[in-house]
Amino acid sequence: MSSTTKQSSLLGLYAMNGGEGEYSYAQNSSYQGGAVDAAKSIIEEEIAAKLDINQLSLTQTKPFNIADFGCSTGHNSFPAIHIITQAIEKRLLAEGLTTQNPEFHVFFNDQLMNDFNTLFQSLPPQRNFHAAGVPGSFHDRLFPKAFLDFAYSSCALNWLSAVPEAVADHMHPAWNKGKIHYAGAKQEVFEAYSSQFAHDVESFLEARAEELVTGGLMALLVPADPASKNSGTSFTSPTEMGVLGSCLMDMAKKGIFSEEKVDTFNLPLYYTNPQELKAIIEKNSSFRMERMEILYSPGKRTLSSAKARATFFRAVFEVMLTNHFGSDVMDELFDRYMKKLAASPHFLDPDNDKSIMILIILKCKAE
Amino acid sequence: MSSTTKQSSLLGLYAMNGGEGEYSYAQNSSYQGGAVDAAKSIIEEEIAAKLDINQLSLTQTKPFNIADFGCSTGHNSFPAIHIITQAIEKRLLAEGLTTQNPEFHVFFNDQLMNDFNTLFQSLPPQRNFHAAGVPGSFHDRLFPKAFLDFAYSSCALNWLSAVPEAVADHMHPAWNKGKIHYAGAKQEVFEAYSSQFAHDVESFLEARAEELVTGGLMALLVPADPASKNSGTSFTSPTEMGVLGSCLMDMAKKGIFSEEKVDTFNLPLYYTNPQELKAIIEKNSSFRMERMEILYSPGKRTLSSAKARATFFRAVFEVMLTNHFGSDVMDELFDRYMKKLAASPHFLDPDNDKSIMILIILKCKAE
Repeated sequence: MSSTTKQSSLLGLYAMNGGEGEYSYAQNSSYQGGAVDAAKSIIEEEIAAKLDINQLSLTQTKPFNIADFGCSTGHNSFPAIHIITQAIEKRLLAEGLTTQNPEFHVFFNDQLMNDFNTLFQSLPPQRNFHAAGVPGSFHDRLFPKAFLDFAYSSCALNWLSAVPEAVADHMHPAWNKGKIHYAGAKQEVFEAYSSQFAHDVESFLEARAEELVTGGLMALLVPADPASKNSGTSFTSPTEMGVLGSCLMDMAKKGIFSEEKVDTFNLPLYYTNPQELKAIIEKNSSFRMERMEILYSPGKRTLSSAKARATFFRAVFEVMLTNHFGSDVMDELFDRYMKKLAASPHFLDPDNDKSIMILIILKCKAE
Repeated sequence: MSSTTKQSSLLGLYAMNGGEGEYSYAQNSSYQGGAVDAAKSIIEEEIAAKLDINQLSLTQTKPFNIADFGCSTGHNSFPAIHIITQAIEKRLLAEGLTTQNPEFHVFFNDQLMNDFNTLFQSLPPQRNFHAAGVPGSFHDRLFPKAFLDFAYSSCALNWLSAVPEAVADHMHPAWNKGKIHYAGAKQEVFEAYSSQFAHDVESFLEARAEELVTGGLMALLVPADPASKNSGTSFTSPTEMGVLGSCLMDMAKKGIFSEEKVDTFNLPLYYTNPQELKAIIEKNSSFRMERMEILYSPGKRTLSSAKARATFFRAVFEVMLTNHFGSDVMDELFDRYMKKLAASPHFLDPDNDKSIMILIILKCKAE
């Protein structure tokens, strides 16, 4: 048997802020929570209609194995798992199979540097499942073959496995000088990100195709951009990343750190669009797309103050910013960031939030 | 489905020191590591002779599920898992089944307050298994029915699920005034501990009987006292706990905290003896005892300086002592403890270490 894990050189860059404090991801992920709420009825419908009771051979002796890929500290994962397990039990009830409810075995996955201690301590004390944590990159295999009955991933596939190498290479046409993301950058930068995203989703699907049983369902929630690939980018989150980048450049110009420090930092985040994601998934022959829905502005009513938005960005990006720029400059950076956001009411008007969430339900086909 | 977890009121008392620092359990558990080494050849022999290849229906599509109950931060767990997986592969090779090696799925269990972040970050980067962490008390159910093929637990069953209530109750004949353990205490105190231990081992075996497949093996390593229950207690560790208790009483007499504070603190640890443990296990009808061996002084050659022993005790007991007495007094406590040990060469002479380790191999019988 060969090794089942590959260690990324970017370990640790991807963890959200741990713990439960002011800047923790746990306290600053209402946007992601909104996505789960918006997806609830569709996930319930698909489980009711598509869960393959016979193929999964659900019996009292075989547990029903569920995994959440990219669970962070669990605060949006637990409600999702609740929705999924309730929908499965309802389906079994409808089939008259209540006497043979399976035991639920739920696996919470995130990067090795995720705060699993907080995740575990946040588990609902009264729960209808056996819980386990699984550390590691979901771009690699994490489970035995044909082990999982249901896979779920929300607000996670937008995280790339790595920053595309070209964008930090000053010899490359895609060098992203003076910026930290593709928003407002050269077309070559955007293409490097887009290409990395396609590669990452392919790796994710290949690993899941091995891990899911035939007939197993997968629900993916992917934050995205409504615009198509070639129509230009104009959407909330990446532009806010542009503001964050401009704050870093302001600090570089003041000599707090070098401009080169900013040139070599890029956020490993990509916002796909429905057409692009559909094309990537359809290239994979192991899954059949059962449903694809666009959820509009699922986080619209949350985080409308400059302070709330700055704190949200801090919860998400502080670990990787600290790794590159050091912890000393974080307070100043996010103070500058909050002030720039406050001075740009455009970002704070919920009606200007054009972000979308793509919900996709896939079924694992027979080999 | 009912809840699968019960939260103990003593959560957090049981975690070893986390991290990798000077007082971490990771840096101070060579004694427990010695136990694994001593047990290696016996575990290998038993897997070679008793692993029920047919009953476990080992095939390429079914993973081989292994759990370690009480893994702490993993430093002694990983070598044990290596021994177990190697022995299983060797057995399959001997049976001519090399083409259908199963995938190993290994579950690392410990209390909810265990440092799982350190555990995960310590996982061997190149490994022949899929890893998962499982938080919770092993006195309760942690896995689906008939899920595990092999269970392992080392230096963990000596930890009680709780301090026996009677020993902290000043109205009870078993009140343990001025002491923190049963060593050198009244017979009633010893009996309260002994009774709690029997109850805990029964709960452990009942939970594992549900979780193990028929034919599944379980290897238990239990630190113990060679003396029988009624012949008096004279063994290293508990007497060292007596010294720790006397340091706490010295500090109480100096007014650093009240004597009542010491009266209400007791260590939830019990050292069984071979006869007692054998009798408890034989009461359980789900397991057949395949082998029982006594390993003498497995940690004999380690930790022979006063400083090393004091640091070992600190790694093990600091979390629960801090919870009760506060962190401010820890340095003074362990400084006093080291000095008392240094003044008692008896404790430091490896030849006076009469501790033993009981190794038991059990097989899960058909219902």
